[in-house]
Amino acid sequence: MTDKLASPVAPSMIAHLSRAFTAIPFNRMLGLRLDHLDAEHVLMSFDMKNELIGNFLHGILHGGVTSSVLDMAGGMVVMTTAITEHPHATPEELAKILGKCSTIDLQISYLRPGKGERFSAKAWIIKQGHKICFTRMELHNHTGSLIASGNGTYLIS
Amino acid sequence: MTDKLASPVAPSMIAHLSRAFTAIPFNRMLGLRLDHLDAEHVLMSFDMKNELIGNFLHGILHGGVTSSVLDMAGGMVVMTTAITEHPHATPEELAKILGKCSTIDLQISYLRPGKGERFSAKAWIIKQGHKICFTRMELHNHTGSLIASGNGTYLIS
Amino acid sequence: MTDKLASPVAPSMIAHLSRAFTAIPFNRMLGLRLDHLDAEHVLMSFDMKNELIGNFLHGILHGGVTSSVLDMAGGMVVMTTAITEHPHATPEELAKILGKCSTIDLQISYLRPGKGERFSAKAWIIKQGHKICFTRMELHNHTGSLIASGNGTYLIS
Amino acid sequence: MTDKLASPVAPSMIAHLSRAFTAIPFNRMLGLRLDHLDAEHVLMSFDMKNELIGNFLHGILHGGVTSSVLDMAGGMVVMTTAITEHPHATPEELAKILGKCSTIDLQISYLRPGKGERFSAKAWIIKQGHKICFTRMELHNHTGSLIASGNGTYLIS
Repeated sequence: MTDKLASPVAPSMIAHLSRAFTAIPFNRMLGLRLDHLDAEHVLMSFDMKNELIGNFLHGILHGGVTSSVLDMAGGMVVMTTAITEHPHATPEELAKILGKCSTIDLQISYLRPGKGERFSAKAWIIKQGHKICFTRMELHNHTGSLIASGNGTYLIS
Repeated sequence: MTDKLASPVAPSMIAHLSRAFTAIPFNRMLGLRLDHLDAEHVLMSFDMKNELIGNFLHGILHGGVTSSVLDMAGGMVVMTTAITEHPHATPEELAKILGKCSTIDLQISYLRPGKGERFSAKAWIIKQGHKICFTRMELHNHTGSLIASGNGTYLIS
Repeated sequence: MTDKLASPVAPSMIAHLSRAFTAIPFNRMLGLRLDHLDAEHVLMSFDMKNELIGNFLHGILHGGVTSSVLDMAGGMVVMTTAITEHPHATPEELAKILGKCSTIDLQISYLRPGKGERFSAKAWIIKQGHKICFTRMELHNHTGSLIASGNGTYLIS
Repeated sequence: MTDKLASPVAPSMIAHLSRAFTAIPFNRMLGLRLDHLDAEHVLMSFDMKNELIGNFLHGILHGGVTSSVLDMAGGMVVMTTAITEHPHATPEELAKILGKCSTIDLQISYLRPGKGERFSAKAWIIKQGHKICFTRMELHNHTGSLIASGNGTYLIS
């Protein structure tokens, strides 16, 4: 992962993707915030709350929350990359491009118990091809501890 | 996977696990029902609803719902297997045994778009070791179409 | 996996694939035999020998042998499926079709130590799409013990 | 991955591991060289040769070579980490510690066709626990192109 900003995403496209993102009830239920979005990486965050706990004995995150957030982060960086390649697309064309993006394979490594007050997910592109896009994802808690890492493989056309 | 019923789980243990399962808010939000539970396989189901949609253009399930349900199904069959090996454990001992079960690796293959009115998840044990347990999971829709398959690796002690 | 024979593969195509298979030095080094091939599943086998041992203390198979054989088995069933869809293709066209098949993702679960005198690998199609093909693979030893299982995701066009 | 050198491995242990490594016929067949070894990361390399080709039409590496090398690299960094925790172990104790290390899950993403004259594999620890160790692996060709990446999960006791 490089830290430089790649081909910047047009503000209207970011707005489009952000609206689509927050319109999804499941994301709202998770309390997912989209903190940063460009063609190379995506940052999201969410706060711990009762609804997201999987193990009340130990107060740790439901494994499904972890996999959901990492899949969502990987998908968002893939979609951002896809739309930056069509800088002059209309909203209808964008919707069509995004509609073609889908997860093929998701792999999650649960490294540490999901304890924390706040969590941040990061996703970046490992390899972008014409048909297939590979991403890497990480979930950290508010102390910077790496809770989970993952790989997503996405079909983009 | 064999179809025979393995070492039957005591009804009180099933009741214990079922209560723990339905006490988890995230599972209630998903609308997950625990339909069958023994030491060899687990069946769960849930109905499509707006809250579970990830793509409104095509009306398909959020990928996070799929990964959450399959991880949950794999975890339940692992926990059921773990408690059947301790037929005389007290509820406190059971809680301790279950508290040690955790997902290590989760892999999901998204085979078809998650369209359907109702979905059923099945999980079964591939290999149960002293420390590590491997499961296989499948998600079908109400027409019997295989939507996703997955593998879970769990630490059990 | 169904046991019925799917669209039978023309003998000349089987011969073509078998020749391509045995022409690969790495497969010869492994001692891989192609025992059965149709559009639904592939069976391969090989004998234990010193060259394939990874752990001499315990006399068990090199993990790379397991992953190599399972990837090869998954790839063969994908290629067989691909060519059965072009029953009238010339050898040149077949070579082109096969040249487009490539592994995207491989996942292997190492279930038991690879002990045995002889091993057999089985691969079958989970889902065949227009662009992506998902397979499941298993490696058994000569006593019928399941040594490893795996998932392969392949790009086919 | 951090670049600092972690707890250095005693030269005698490195010698022990290197001997064990090169004593494995499968590694010799691959032509694998162990270039660097410490408790945080491992570097290996090998040259392209006919015996490692999987696709002669395009002259690319056999997928099994890629998965074998990445599993081997992940396993080596795990074993190095395991022995650095026992700085005063005898060779017999070391052999016992290493004998307990085994791969649980391996995941490989095939990012680009394996073309190249020389390949280098890198593996590093993502999370080291008491029982489970997670690694990340990469394979580059001689031009620095990332050919494949992977994740290994290992049991260490």
